[in-house]
Amino acid sequence: MISAADLDDIAVGGAILGTGGGGDPYIGKLMAQRAIQKHGAVRMIDLKDVDDDALVVPCAMMGAPTVMVEKIPEGGEILVAFRKLQAFLGRKIGAILCAEAGGLNSTIPFAIGAMTGLPVIDGDGMGRAYPELQMVTFTLHGVSATPMVIVDDKGNSVLLECIDNRWTERLARSATIEMGGSVLITLYPMSGATAKKSSVGGTLTLARRLGEILRESRLAHADAIAAIQSKLNAQTIFEGRVIDIARRTETGFARGDAKFEGLGAYRGRSYRIAFQNEFLIAERDGKPLVTTPDLITLLDADTGAPITTETIRYGLRVVAIAIPCAPQWRTAAGLKLVGPRYFGYDVDYRPFDPSTP
Amino acid sequence: MISAADLDDIAVGGAILGTGGGGDPYIGKLMAQRAIQKHGAVRMIDLKDVDDDALVVPCAMMGAPTVMVEKIPEGGEILVAFRKLQAFLGRKIGAILCAEAGGLNSTIPFAIGAMTGLPVIDGDGMGRAYPELQMVTFTLHGVSATPMVIVDDKGNSVLLECIDNRWTERLARSATIEMGGSVLITLYPMSGATAKKSSVGGTLTLARRLGEILRESRLAHADAIAAIQSKLNAQTIFEGRVIDIARRTETGFARGDAKFEGLGAYRGRSYRIAFQNEFLIAERDGKPLVTTPDLITLLDADTGAPITTETIRYGLRVVAIAIPCAPQWRTAAGLKLVGPRYFGYDVDYRPFDPSTP
Repeated sequence: MISAADLDDIAVGGAILGTGGGGDPYIGKLMAQRAIQKHGAVRMIDLKDVDDDALVVPCAMMGAPTVMVEKIPEGGEILVAFRKLQAFLGRKIGAILCAEAGGLNSTIPFAIGAMTGLPVIDGDGMGRAYPELQMVTFTLHGVSATPMVIVDDKGNSVLLECIDNRWTERLARSATIEMGGSVLITLYPMSGATAKKSSVGGTLTLARRLGEILRESRLAHADAIAAIQSKLNAQTIFEGRVIDIARRTETGFARGDAKFEGLGAYRGRSYRIAFQNEFLIAERDGKPLVTTPDLITLLDADTGAPITTETIRYGLRVVAIAIPCAPQWRTAAGLKLVGPRYFGYDVDYRPFDPSTP
Repeated sequence: MISAADLDDIAVGGAILGTGGGGDPYIGKLMAQRAIQKHGAVRMIDLKDVDDDALVVPCAMMGAPTVMVEKIPEGGEILVAFRKLQAFLGRKIGAILCAEAGGLNSTIPFAIGAMTGLPVIDGDGMGRAYPELQMVTFTLHGVSATPMVIVDDKGNSVLLECIDNRWTERLARSATIEMGGSVLITLYPMSGATAKKSSVGGTLTLARRLGEILRESRLAHADAIAAIQSKLNAQTIFEGRVIDIARRTETGFARGDAKFEGLGAYRGRSYRIAFQNEFLIAERDGKPLVTTPDLITLLDADTGAPITTETIRYGLRVVAIAIPCAPQWRTAAGLKLVGPRYFGYDVDYRPFDPSTP
């Protein structure tokens, strides 16, 4: 069972897996904790324990994180999105799935789990966070994002049925912008059998464990960053200080880049990380070091706390780490969907291998 | 019964009531004629003969006329929009209503009438054409535009449920733009009793009669423009020649203005007509003469044929006429919805009175 306290850990772990994006986990955590305080703890189940015939539905928030910070949603909208999709499908939803394990969408499913009494499946559709809704492993398995329901804080709702998941992204994105920049969504309805095939398993347990590690390391005055890296099979890309940060919100995304001067063993080098909601590419002296789909995460050099794109600030000392992505993303189809070229970087993907520094 | 031949007349009359907008009637006519050739003639019924309990649904096309000209839709989309709304409401639709009597939306309902075998009601929600979907007399009677279904030519569909009709316009407009600029819609589902209260009655019969008058006047070499004016209780604003025309498609609308030099009795004067899909204000020497909600229509000075905003061209000789609007628009609520100030003109509405030249 997932308690309100567990969500503190999941939110921190979700921010680590969020690679700087996925929205401020604090908002999703608050929503889920309020719901758990009111309705009780949420059952989390393994992918393998999901009934093959169950109707499984991912629930999430969509929009630019920078907008979300100013516009904390009420929990009720997600229940509206859940009910409208259930009514449209004419079948009871049996379990909640997580669309992305990174950022606030790691905790949103627990809000709806608490409100409905349904279990949340331990897994997600990314093993990280990504900025566009077709960027899920579900797409790689031919799962349609629609019927999809979008609900705003004013009471408007949109139900989409689209010919492919790119069209769903396009229409959902323009609706999200028109609805104020941040909405709650239910999408990718699928069977339990399909969820088993198409999800990245165990990611919510991993997020919780990462939160625990950070919390326990701090209490023990141990090296939190080393402990996190060990758990994730991750490696340091650099240690550095933020010397420049540029952000802009355009077409519903928080885009920008951050520049760093190397510190310690990395002194004399310059680094740059570009983001589109999430950190997508890390460069040293103008040359790519790590790219999407592998995970690039920034941790506060003092505390080990994950840093999101909206909290990076001038002068901050960070440790940038790289984490190997879920194997599904390293296929040709996966790279077509989320590789560096999709995001406009003229760079071939080279799998990050933590064993060869 | 409405035959394919009747649609020639309705389309011409619809262009006269379309006040330059509402989309090229030729497209809607072709769609409806094809459907009638395949499925047979369509029954048109008086508003008073509609069953109070029947589910009545307006069907229309939405988008910028300039886009529609390049992108003639297949008829099937409107049937998809019809079926999706019917399925969502879980009730059989009993009759088709016309959203706007002006432009191509005067004929689109006959396409769906032919395909479904349902009657089309003789009336509409404007008595003319207007550019935004909340601009219908249904809104004045508290009818919600949603649930509304939007279908594009690719196979995508959107179902909206909104808190008010302005929000529906906003979300439907951004979806229309994203879907390619021209879509088919079903909206404002209502009971027969509500349709009776909230519609402008007899407008399709009027459109057909206007088309007949123009056709018969031409055959008889009679004065078509005088005959049209007499039928509509209309009056000439000016005769003139187009000396400038500016058009731009922005936020899904065809906006612009046309300038004229007066001819004949109007020589020495300059005229200007501004449009936003429809002609909204006519000025003489910089001063307003006629404004929305009264109808401003341009007729070809030689043939009497109605001229749409997309067919105005330099050098064209026209007769501009004004037609009193449906009385519902002259109320405070009506003027708030479609008066000149709504469209950004700093002008008070003065009802056009054909008895005082």
